[in-house]
Amino acid sequence: MNRQKLIEQIQAKKSCLCIGLDTDIHRIPSQFKSSSDPVFEFNKAIIDATHDLCVAYKPNIAFYESMGISGWKSLEKTLDYIPDDIFTIADAKRGDILNTSTMYAKTYFEYMDFDAVTVAPYMGKDSVTPFLEFTDKWVIVLGLTSNEGSADFQQLQLNSGEMLYEKVIKTVQQWGNPDNLMFVIGATRHEMLADIRSIAPDHFFLIPGVGAQGGDVEQVMLNGRNNDVGMLINSSRNIIYAGTGHDFQEMARSSALSIQHTMAGYIGM
Amino acid sequence: MNRQKLIEQIQAKKSCLCIGLDTDIHRIPSQFKSSSDPVFEFNKAIIDATHDLCVAYKPNIAFYESMGISGWKSLEKTLDYIPDDIFTIADAKRGDILNTSTMYAKTYFEYMDFDAVTVAPYMGKDSVTPFLEFTDKWVIVLGLTSNEGSADFQQLQLNSGEMLYEKVIKTVQQWGNPDNLMFVIGATRHEMLADIRSIAPDHFFLIPGVGAQGGDVEQVMLNGRNNDVGMLINSSRNIIYAGTGHDFQEMARSSALSIQHTMAGYIGM
Repeated sequence: MNRQKLIEQIQAKKSCLCIGLDTDIHRIPSQFKSSSDPVFEFNKAIIDATHDLCVAYKPNIAFYESMGISGWKSLEKTLDYIPDDIFTIADAKRGDILNTSTMYAKTYFEYMDFDAVTVAPYMGKDSVTPFLEFTDKWVIVLGLTSNEGSADFQQLQLNSGEMLYEKVIKTVQQWGNPDNLMFVIGATRHEMLADIRSIAPDHFFLIPGVGAQGGDVEQVMLNGRNNDVGMLINSSRNIIYAGTGHDFQEMARSSALSIQHTMAGYIGM
Repeated sequence: MNRQKLIEQIQAKKSCLCIGLDTDIHRIPSQFKSSSDPVFEFNKAIIDATHDLCVAYKPNIAFYESMGISGWKSLEKTLDYIPDDIFTIADAKRGDILNTSTMYAKTYFEYMDFDAVTVAPYMGKDSVTPFLEFTDKWVIVLGLTSNEGSADFQQLQLNSGEMLYEKVIKTVQQWGNPDNLMFVIGATRHEMLADIRSIAPDHFFLIPGVGAQGGDVEQVMLNGRNNDVGMLINSSRNIIYAGTGHDFQEMARSSALSIQHTMAGYIGM
C-alpha cells in the first residue's frame, strides 16, 4: 500500500489505529479451543469486530513462530483474511547482513504479502536497505522503543551530544524516504514525541505501548502528529484481550471504538 | 549443551569450527532439484561430509523462513539430523519486549531444541533476559558484527569515551554469565579482537565473517582465544558452496578440513 492510500484510509475512517494481533493460544476464549485452528479463528473474530475502526493490523511474528508450522499456517490465513484496504505490518524486528536481510524481505514481501516489516537497526545500513527495494512496501525501523530496556542503549548519549536513538532516526532517514520508511517510537515516551517529530517531520511513526504498556492516546495525538497525521498508534492486548468470555468481540470492539473516538477528535481538524 | 561439554568437544576435535547452514535453494547442486526436500537433503549431505571437523552448526533462519512452511520443515529435519554432540545455533537475530522475547525463546528452546539463539541488543535488558532463563541454553548477543553497516551505529563513540559495541558487551555481561551468554564478534575486525577479549575474557565469542566476508582464521586464533579457546569460528558460504558439481561433498569437506587444520595448531597448546 502506498502512502497516499494509507493517508486516505486514515482520513476516511478518522482513525490511525493499528491493532496488534499478539495472539497467545493460552489467552484466547475457551470456545475456540475445539477449533482446528484456534489462533486463526480468534483473529478472524477480532478482525470481524474491529476492521471498520482501524487502518492497520500488526501480527507479532513471535507468537506465531513459537507454535511452529501450525503457527505459520495461522499467520498466513490471518494475513489472507485481512481486508485489502487495511495496512498490514509483520512485527518481526528482523535485521542481518545484506544477503540475509534480503531473505527476510522476501519472506514478508514476496512469500507473504505484508505491506511493512519492523527492522532492528543495530547492524546498520546493509541490514536495512534490502527491505527498501520493494515497490509500495515499507520498512519500519526501531527508533525509540516503549520498553524499560530502551534506556540501556537507545538513550545513551553519544560524544556528538545526541542520544543514540536520535542518531539512528537521523541516519536511517538518509537510506529511505517518507514513502517507504517509518520509525517505531514508543508511546510511553510521549514527552519525547514532539522532539522526535521535529527530527523526522515527514515520516510515519508506528507507536506501540498504548494501553498495556501505559501510553496515552490523547498525548500521542497532541505531540506526535503531522499534517498527514503521520502515525499508526498500536494497541494489542488492551483490545484483543479486552474480554475473555463469550462477549469478547463486543469488548474488543468497545475498546477499539474508545481509542478511535479519541483519535477522531484530532483527524481532519 | 553446557559449557564444559562444548569445551570437551573443541579439545577432542581440535576444532572450534561452526558451519553456517545458509542454504539457498537456488545455489545447491542440481542433483537435489528433484528431491522432495532439496534443502534438507543438501544439509544432510553437508553434515555427513563435515560433522567430524566441526563442533557447531548454525542454520541461518532467514533462509528457511523465506521458503515459508516448507522451509520450517527443512529446518526441523536438519536440526533433528545434527548429531547430539554438536552445538546448534539458531542464527535468528531476534529481540523484542519481554513477553515477545519469551515467545522467541520458546520457539528455539522448546518448540525446537537449539542450544543457542542469536539476539540483537538494541531493545535492551528485557529483550535479552527471557532467553537466559533456560538451563544449558545460550543467548549469543550481537557485539561487533562483521558487515559494513557495523560502522553506522556499533562503532559510534559515546560521551563516556567508549564505542557503543564496547558498552553493549560490558552491559550485557551483567545480565548473564559465561555459562549462558556469548557474543557475536565479527572476524573482519580482527585488529579489534584482542581488545574485545580484554573486555570479556571468559565469554565465548561466535565469530562470523571468515571466508566469504574476508576474515582470516589464523589472525582470529591468535587474537581471540582464551584458555578454553572460547570461540566458535563460523564459515558458511566458503564451505557449503565450495563446490557446485557432483563433488560438492568432497569440496565442502576439503574447505572445512583446511580451516580445522589451522585451528588445530592453536588448540591444546
